[in-house]
Amino acid sequence: MKSRISLWSLGLSLSLSLFLFIGCKQQTISNEPETSTSSEVSDPLPSWNEGATKSAIIEFVNKVTNENGPDYVAEEDRIATFDNDGNLWCEQPYYFQLAFATDRIKAMAEDHPEWKTTQPYKAILENDFKTVMDNGMHGLLEIVMASHAGMTAEEFDGLVADWLATAKHPRFKQPYQELIYQPMLELLDYLRANGFKTFVVSGGGIEFMRVWAPEAYGIPRDQIVGSSIKTVFEYDDGNAVIRRLPEIDFIDDKAGKPVGIHKYIGKRPIFASGNSDGDLQMLQYTDANSLPSFQLYLHHTDAEREYAYDRESHVGKLDKGLDEAEVKGWTVIDMKNDWKVVFPEN
Amino acid sequence: MKSRISLWSLGLSLSLSLFLFIGCKQQTISNEPETSTSSEVSDPLPSWNEGATKSAIIEFVNKVTNENGPDYVAEEDRIATFDNDGNLWCEQPYYFQLAFATDRIKAMAEDHPEWKTTQPYKAILENDFKTVMDNGMHGLLEIVMASHAGMTAEEFDGLVADWLATAKHPRFKQPYQELIYQPMLELLDYLRANGFKTFVVSGGGIEFMRVWAPEAYGIPRDQIVGSSIKTVFEYDDGNAVIRRLPEIDFIDDKAGKPVGIHKYIGKRPIFASGNSDGDLQMLQYTDANSLPSFQLYLHHTDAEREYAYDRESHVGKLDKGLDEAEVKGWTVIDMKNDWKVVFPEN
Repeated sequence: MKSRISLWSLGLSLSLSLFLFIGCKQQTISNEPETSTSSEVSDPLPSWNEGATKSAIIEFVNKVTNENGPDYVAEEDRIATFDNDGNLWCEQPYYFQLAFATDRIKAMAEDHPEWKTTQPYKAILENDFKTVMDNGMHGLLEIVMASHAGMTAEEFDGLVADWLATAKHPRFKQPYQELIYQPMLELLDYLRANGFKTFVVSGGGIEFMRVWAPEAYGIPRDQIVGSSIKTVFEYDDGNAVIRRLPEIDFIDDKAGKPVGIHKYIGKRPIFASGNSDGDLQMLQYTDANSLPSFQLYLHHTDAEREYAYDRESHVGKLDKGLDEAEVKGWTVIDMKNDWKVVFPEN
Repeated sequence: MKSRISLWSLGLSLSLSLFLFIGCKQQTISNEPETSTSSEVSDPLPSWNEGATKSAIIEFVNKVTNENGPDYVAEEDRIATFDNDGNLWCEQPYYFQLAFATDRIKAMAEDHPEWKTTQPYKAILENDFKTVMDNGMHGLLEIVMASHAGMTAEEFDGLVADWLATAKHPRFKQPYQELIYQPMLELLDYLRANGFKTFVVSGGGIEFMRVWAPEAYGIPRDQIVGSSIKTVFEYDDGNAVIRRLPEIDFIDDKAGKPVGIHKYIGKRPIFASGNSDGDLQMLQYTDANSLPSFQLYLHHTDAEREYAYDRESHVGKLDKGLDEAEVKGWTVIDMKNDWKVVFPEN
């Protein structure tokens, strides 16, 4: 458990570093979807440019749904898992959930006068992020626990919803939940239309995602898997609630992803989609399926419309994954060249 | 965590007591389904006798699916949760999973010569169940861990499937997975036909159930919630497996049931069905839904066709639940009088 918490803390630390020290160029988004032509009417992936990536996806779906072919997969086994941060929505310049945590601390400060003199809260409140970082992992975990625990499950849902209603991305100046990838929405729809059951499998907080992801992706709450804190049932004369505890329950990242898939889904996917080394084990687990399977990596190559990062990035690092994709022949999306648009048109 | 393990151990202990010391009357099952009449053709619950119980179920489903009524519930919120042991399948004279654990120990004994002289295994192998019990909780937990851990997830699936293919219930002389309740199968179908998403929420082992419950109940693996042991991802040159560890992860019983529902489903049910005090918190949690909700208890009152037990039973004790059902006006199935048949016709 200790090592998992450390991994998670490290992720937080790296994210928070970015959050604090890397300036965000203010730049408006340029979504320029091409006009539909009649030939595109039946195209299941209209925001994808023609090419090897799109063809590979469609060929895979065709072969596993062809009842008379050798690669047919029964509908009940068509499990597709998608990472969230940097794969279904943007994750730069910091994980969006970290912005929520930081904003929560500031919003809660009035009820915690002691925070003015207590680290790591004092530093957050004073925007003294160097000191936050100097406090190390323990301080970062404390921030997450303080901002995500203590309330009931329903109260937490409300806090996330309220935050999403007003918070804006620093570069794109749009609500975070609108910074989802249009081509991936089409891919989710396409898979579901072909009998796949689609799941989110993310290192992000399961309860954080469940508030907005069902509407954003068309994936119900019970098909969203993520990291979690412990909860407890409280009952008092008809009032029955789930209360969130300041204790890590499960970290759904790296080797935790196959564990999370096994725990929540109970079946090995035949289609797995991710964008970082944190997804590598999920893709390996899927690749080892005895049924035909498909592995998809999203490579962020588009600094103009979104971001360009891979081997050296502190958020969504994609290094070992790129190498393994080449060796194994996994499909890699080149965002800049494979996608006609990045975000949905407003 | 400690108290939960103790509760679980206690359950095991009590079940094992029954398993060991209570003789099972050998008796053949008498399923006597009534002949369908033309008026029953459109009856969604043909194995249920007409009466208050059946009417209450149908009235609830009608009102929450009536788009123009005040109690309409959107389809996405129609979550129904069902306990398994004693609610969807039989749980007497002992939890069926415990028979699996005991049979596993005996099957594994050849590879563990030391068990011949080591408790609690020695006692199991010698059918000396008094000594097993004298070894207490620790010995019982050790039996479960030894029989359920160590192998990969896929190997465990195979062990359960193999066991089910040959094991027979001591009284009914049928495979355990055929001792499911026909009226409950109809209820599951009826709810799904009305837009409900049905889940199993059981104190039993999640991986044990996932092997047979999808076919038995028409509920996919990812909609089955239960108790679990920890697992770890192992990867070696393309071979990617989940290995089962001898450590408790989550106990989905009593106050753990609302926690399990929150964790796996992420939504408060509007329909909850159970048969013991272990389900009470799930029913309380559902009753506190701000949406219209329905609570259902199955009362085992039929010693002839199945079993009769409640307040004093060491398996599936229903005591506090019966009292609370009366106070709250929850619906209680009287198995003997409400069900035309118990098990499916072969």
